[in-house]
Amino acid sequence: MSEFKVTVRNRIKRHPERSHFDKSTVYEIIDEAMICHIGFVQEGQSFVIPTLYARRNDHLLLHGATTSRLIQYVQAGNEVSISIAIIDGIVLAKSVFNHSINYRSVVLFGKGALITDAEEKMRALEYFTERIMPGRWMEARKPVANESRATSIVSIPIAEASAKIRTGPPGDDSEDMGLPVWAGVLPVKQKIGEPITADYTGSDISVPAYVQKYISKHNADS
Amino acid sequence: MSEFKVTVRNRIKRHPERSHFDKSTVYEIIDEAMICHIGFVQEGQSFVIPTLYARRNDHLLLHGATTSRLIQYVQAGNEVSISIAIIDGIVLAKSVFNHSINYRSVVLFGKGALITDAEEKMRALEYFTERIMPGRWMEARKPVANESRATSIVSIPIAEASAKIRTGPPGDDSEDMGLPVWAGVLPVKQKIGEPITADYTGSDISVPAYVQKYISKHNADS
Repeated sequence: MSEFKVTVRNRIKRHPERSHFDKSTVYEIIDEAMICHIGFVQEGQSFVIPTLYARRNDHLLLHGATTSRLIQYVQAGNEVSISIAIIDGIVLAKSVFNHSINYRSVVLFGKGALITDAEEKMRALEYFTERIMPGRWMEARKPVANESRATSIVSIPIAEASAKIRTGPPGDDSEDMGLPVWAGVLPVKQKIGEPITADYTGSDISVPAYVQKYISKHNADS
Repeated sequence: MSEFKVTVRNRIKRHPERSHFDKSTVYEIIDEAMICHIGFVQEGQSFVIPTLYARRNDHLLLHGATTSRLIQYVQAGNEVSISIAIIDGIVLAKSVFNHSINYRSVVLFGKGALITDAEEKMRALEYFTERIMPGRWMEARKPVANESRATSIVSIPIAEASAKIRTGPPGDDSEDMGLPVWAGVLPVKQKIGEPITADYTGSDISVPAYVQKYISKHNADS
């Protein structure tokens, strides 16, 4: 399946030309962003919270304390709605009405399950760690049993998903194009700054090569 | 009222030391971020979507097409949950378990209403525009009646809100501090790049001073 055949299509009313359903587009956005916003319902009330995630194939992994409401909600078999958004630019048009932002966003839906097998859970923790910082799992002290027990990981198969993308210059109406007003885009980029070493690191330990590489790659790509 | 006296307190289980309820802290985060994620419930299903917003005193303004599901949901008197999150850093500890991110986030709840008065709506559009780019309202072509009619703005009084903040170095356990592993924080910052002028701008029109000022200020602050 290279494209999401999804009922979410029917939910899209506005700017249908910005919608994308192919997996490669959707997954690229998921893999680039760092946090998602997850929505769940309790007693008819919507709750939205931000959280880290990692994609493993067609699943999204989320983690939390064993006692977390979110984990318990997913574990109980409820469907969640997850939104991921990246801001790429501020779009200044000649008319106020055509101001916008450039962005890439994904909305997805799925019902997840708790990862209960200890080995599978350790692999999921590895995925999570490597997603935050490739190379880190091999170097950092790995979780011991009571740490692993304190963390729950749920795996959510991505059942429905769509991306929405706005890119390019402002879209002024033709009758406004001659107005003596500057129009254009201010690119927005997420950058990583100079690493701040923790006091207790040890004076003979320098920033690892894989961290330096991550920073260079991130700052070049984004 | 300088602090939110809110039932949301009872919802916070994890890392209570990261929670803040004073308005100045909450509002600073709201004013710095660019998009929010809003959650609403339809037929028992949660939906989360990203959208732009502007804070006006103790209200959050959201806009959308008159036909948008979100606008209609708020207009119908339903309570929404809104989450705003800023990522400040990647926190690499010596142990996998203590990896984290530095962030500032706000969760708020409120029931909004449609702004129906034409003048009030024009002022809200001005607020929105000036929030995206201070100085823009004076220069750009202002909305005409049919443009204003095509846009709905809802104003949501911030009834409940709390901020959650993690800042500073990694928090390794004392027995891990001597491990020969680099620990520290990679600062994450949102930066504005060089403006991209639209082809149709006109060759004699340069990037306005208020845009240059915005870029300098944004890149210095963040």
